[in-house]
Amino acid sequence: MERLIKVAIGDEKADLVLKGGNIINVYTGEIEVADIAICDGYIAGIGEYSGLVEENMQGKYLSPGFIDGHLHIESTMLSPANFAKAVLPWGTTTGICDPHEIANVCGEQGVLYMINESKQMPFDAIFMVPSCVPATPYENNGATIDANGVDRLLNVCHGVGEFMNAPGVIYRDKDVINKLKHAKNRGVIVDGHFPLAQGKELNAYVSAGIKTDHECVELQEACAKLRRGMYVLIREGSATKNLRDLFRVINSKTLRRLVFCTDDKQVYELQTIGHINNNIKIAIQMGLSPVDAITMATLNVAECYKLEDRGALAPGKIADIVVLDDIYNFNILQVYKKGVLVAKDGKALFEAKTLFDTATRNTVNCKDINIEDFRLKLNSDKVRVIGIEPHNVTTSSLVRKVNVKDGEYVKTDGISKICVIERHKSTGKIGIGLIEGYGITNGAVAISISHDSHNIIVCGDNDKDMLLAVNEIKRVGGGMTAVHNGKVYDTLGLPIAGLMSDCDIDYIAQKTENLNKFALSTLKISPSVEPFMTLSFMALVVIPELKISDKGLFEYKTFKFVPIEVEE
Amino acid sequence: MERLIKVAIGDEKADLVLKGGNIINVYTGEIEVADIAICDGYIAGIGEYSGLVEENMQGKYLSPGFIDGHLHIESTMLSPANFAKAVLPWGTTTGICDPHEIANVCGEQGVLYMINESKQMPFDAIFMVPSCVPATPYENNGATIDANGVDRLLNVCHGVGEFMNAPGVIYRDKDVINKLKHAKNRGVIVDGHFPLAQGKELNAYVSAGIKTDHECVELQEACAKLRRGMYVLIREGSATKNLRDLFRVINSKTLRRLVFCTDDKQVYELQTIGHINNNIKIAIQMGLSPVDAITMATLNVAECYKLEDRGALAPGKIADIVVLDDIYNFNILQVYKKGVLVAKDGKALFEAKTLFDTATRNTVNCKDINIEDFRLKLNSDKVRVIGIEPHNVTTSSLVRKVNVKDGEYVKTDGISKICVIERHKSTGKIGIGLIEGYGITNGAVAISISHDSHNIIVCGDNDKDMLLAVNEIKRVGGGMTAVHNGKVYDTLGLPIAGLMSDCDIDYIAQKTENLNKFALSTLKISPSVEPFMTLSFMALVVIPELKISDKGLFEYKTFKFVPIEVEE
Repeated sequence: MERLIKVAIGDEKADLVLKGGNIINVYTGEIEVADIAICDGYIAGIGEYSGLVEENMQGKYLSPGFIDGHLHIESTMLSPANFAKAVLPWGTTTGICDPHEIANVCGEQGVLYMINESKQMPFDAIFMVPSCVPATPYENNGATIDANGVDRLLNVCHGVGEFMNAPGVIYRDKDVINKLKHAKNRGVIVDGHFPLAQGKELNAYVSAGIKTDHECVELQEACAKLRRGMYVLIREGSATKNLRDLFRVINSKTLRRLVFCTDDKQVYELQTIGHINNNIKIAIQMGLSPVDAITMATLNVAECYKLEDRGALAPGKIADIVVLDDIYNFNILQVYKKGVLVAKDGKALFEAKTLFDTATRNTVNCKDINIEDFRLKLNSDKVRVIGIEPHNVTTSSLVRKVNVKDGEYVKTDGISKICVIERHKSTGKIGIGLIEGYGITNGAVAISISHDSHNIIVCGDNDKDMLLAVNEIKRVGGGMTAVHNGKVYDTLGLPIAGLMSDCDIDYIAQKTENLNKFALSTLKISPSVEPFMTLSFMALVVIPELKISDKGLFEYKTFKFVPIEVEE
Repeated sequence: MERLIKVAIGDEKADLVLKGGNIINVYTGEIEVADIAICDGYIAGIGEYSGLVEENMQGKYLSPGFIDGHLHIESTMLSPANFAKAVLPWGTTTGICDPHEIANVCGEQGVLYMINESKQMPFDAIFMVPSCVPATPYENNGATIDANGVDRLLNVCHGVGEFMNAPGVIYRDKDVINKLKHAKNRGVIVDGHFPLAQGKELNAYVSAGIKTDHECVELQEACAKLRRGMYVLIREGSATKNLRDLFRVINSKTLRRLVFCTDDKQVYELQTIGHINNNIKIAIQMGLSPVDAITMATLNVAECYKLEDRGALAPGKIADIVVLDDIYNFNILQVYKKGVLVAKDGKALFEAKTLFDTATRNTVNCKDINIEDFRLKLNSDKVRVIGIEPHNVTTSSLVRKVNVKDGEYVKTDGISKICVIERHKSTGKIGIGLIEGYGITNGAVAISISHDSHNIIVCGDNDKDMLLAVNEIKRVGGGMTAVHNGKVYDTLGLPIAGLMSDCDIDYIAQKTENLNKFALSTLKISPSVEPFMTLSFMALVVIPELKISDKGLFEYKTFKFVPIEVEE
């Protein structure tokens, strides 16, 4: 502290001075031409300063580092170290991270791995404790984090992550209430997740102390949540893009309670349009003042998450600084993290330091399976079929007549077989269903990412290729693979919890692109689906309408398991 | 928590429902007609509710309880209990309190008394640790709170109070830095106090982690502090009224970083124009939207001081609610504190529960003094005289020729004698000076409130009456008194630390009015000064230009003690 003050008053030279840039002031909305003096990674002062190193910033714009209000690192398939390397060049210097996916595979150990690997990088991953592990009782996952586990993890985490179990809150499930009480006793933030909440249900949810929501898809929904005191996180993820629909909620009164987030981003977007910078850019293109848009990605997030040490360019704040060519073009020239230049012209200037944590490896534990396990026995030919909705993760519940031979389902035009294989505790559980609109031919694809329990999900038109695909996933300890006519075409290994690679973004992007191309061209999967990502949502039973877990076919409407055969 | 959720969802009746009022929403700037359901002192929900008790609020406006961002209870001469009773009818339900005055008399014990008495009242006095006790080394006070003391008090306080010792921060005094480090380690807020700060000094002060400032008197000053990340508290005290000068700093960008406060209020204002409601009213009269003005006194303060549980009318927040007739008239009809009606039509509906804490009693400890002690020996007739500046607490440094007889000052037209008598540790220290512009005739006034060390200050035109006045203050254990022609006219006892009465506001108001009237009429004190309050600032050596402490005459320009006689 003494040295910072010494530099601020001018009694000692700064470590680094960024000279004469246009400094974006999120407190007043002004742009000020001045120097920024940096010392020990913190901003000492703004004004006229000299330093041991000086960088000319004339004509450039300096913004506080961007903060992503809510994200799952695992969704990128990048490990925390490679994630940091991927997002820093886009100006994201801090992220509020919910390690919900790895927690469903590895439990508390998985969360600790994420924290430990992140600590090695020049990126502040601020972790929230996954609140809903398992996400539902309707599937088998790898671990449970109960109220005591949440409390334990709060020793090393910043708050409690998205509380998806809204009914558990509203109807006061004991373990849910205990989790909320632990958060309250510690005075930490609890993130929300309650799509389309309104009226008394919204009141009840908020009265429990839940502070944020990132699930708004409609303007009125966002208004309602703001009115009841929630921070609304406006999301631009790879699958869910909400900013255009919610744009009109932004005004001079509500601005301070609005935050940007990405939630789930895939590598191809990280390589092309970027990260939180993209939320800002879209908002500016839609007519929001650039400083307001930047404020939503900086000061507002810092206030929401009580991060006093960042979110603005001011004395005493961490020197996380994004250098822009212009506030409208919004090209990111340089990124400083804690006063160190960490990215330039879109390239990270550091190496990813990954950690090998045995607790997160070899997580694919299935019983040996054979081709008999994929048999779908039927007494009749009238069955429930999962109907894929193009470009969406919800499904419809269809009833179809299918081919049956010797009391067993056989290949039927337009329909594929989909199976979910429990892979955490070798229970041997396999859920078998049928799906329409996926369109795979002469092959199978499989992936060990399937929300939220991350069992192996496999889809194909013949049991032989499906078996091969599942065995390939087992062989590599998790990943995604495509099989064609009895041969594995290619596989992306995801050895960390079956969710993340330890390779860099270029490798993952090239592999996934290759696999997707093959799936669309050779396997003739429908162009209106994403071959792997669509699959990975087919086990997410908490959204409409018909889904499949390792425990069987699940109907959202009745919130119950249903038999595949439709009773007459 | 369970019951609150139960009421929110409608499974159980609320304790109280305020039906159909116009609810002021500080999150969105809207006014919403709905019911507020209250349970166990908290807001469960907003919408349509039924309760065990229901109050019709149709046509009325409901605001969150007001929060005063910075105040000294002691300045009102009311004890914490009577203070609560005085401000709640004006809608102030929470105050950020700095017990700086009592700490200078009683040290840590004084702070604990303030906390303990406050706890008994339906008012949330949130205490900050006085950071500068003693305020300066240029006077003797009653106690010292060093860095260890600050750290100890942080166990029971919310943060660190106004850091007046700006040079100590900027030039890194060891004990000052340790205080700041304790605050930083605990992650608590540090309030500032740095009049006219700018440039590198402002940078240095803010870089130390100091978050707020309530000393702005000029627009540009407020802008500069906002730019560097400080919250600016706009003050309407009894002596210092800054809102009109600072009004133009309020705009849609800066609003969120602006907070209202009163700092020092005297009883006559508390009885007439009120408290924080007056800041709001003035802002509205000047053209600010009522909801914005209310936001400055509610949500903004809660955000600044990280009071997650208040500042808005929303589920989960404390049911502190002000019922207004209209948002322009701004008449306060009722006040609810934690869901209980505590004031109606300007009257508190509860009794003040005072505490008798021996640590804060009998704090006037002077040596026996006699008339000889008031003698001012002079070798020459050319002396420095304190020049009162009408309606101000600053003074000028005058040089005057005075009457001298037998090597001693004797009565001189237009000039009065002023003495400061150390009263904490019986050191026998007495500072003797002369003052112009006060105009007292045939008498003396004395008071045990004198910023910031609160020694006895006495002013008169004859030593006999001055002695009588000082002895009267000693007799009552602190207070304020007026003496005329050898007789005590009247005395207001301030037995708590010599600063506060244990009587209610009406008694204090009547006594002070009576004393002031007598002082102006019979004692012929100049109408351009406040007989007692002006005196109580004559020992405040940290503001210009010539002041007096128990250690002698102090010149601000050289920041040194000066002899009374001017060298030729």
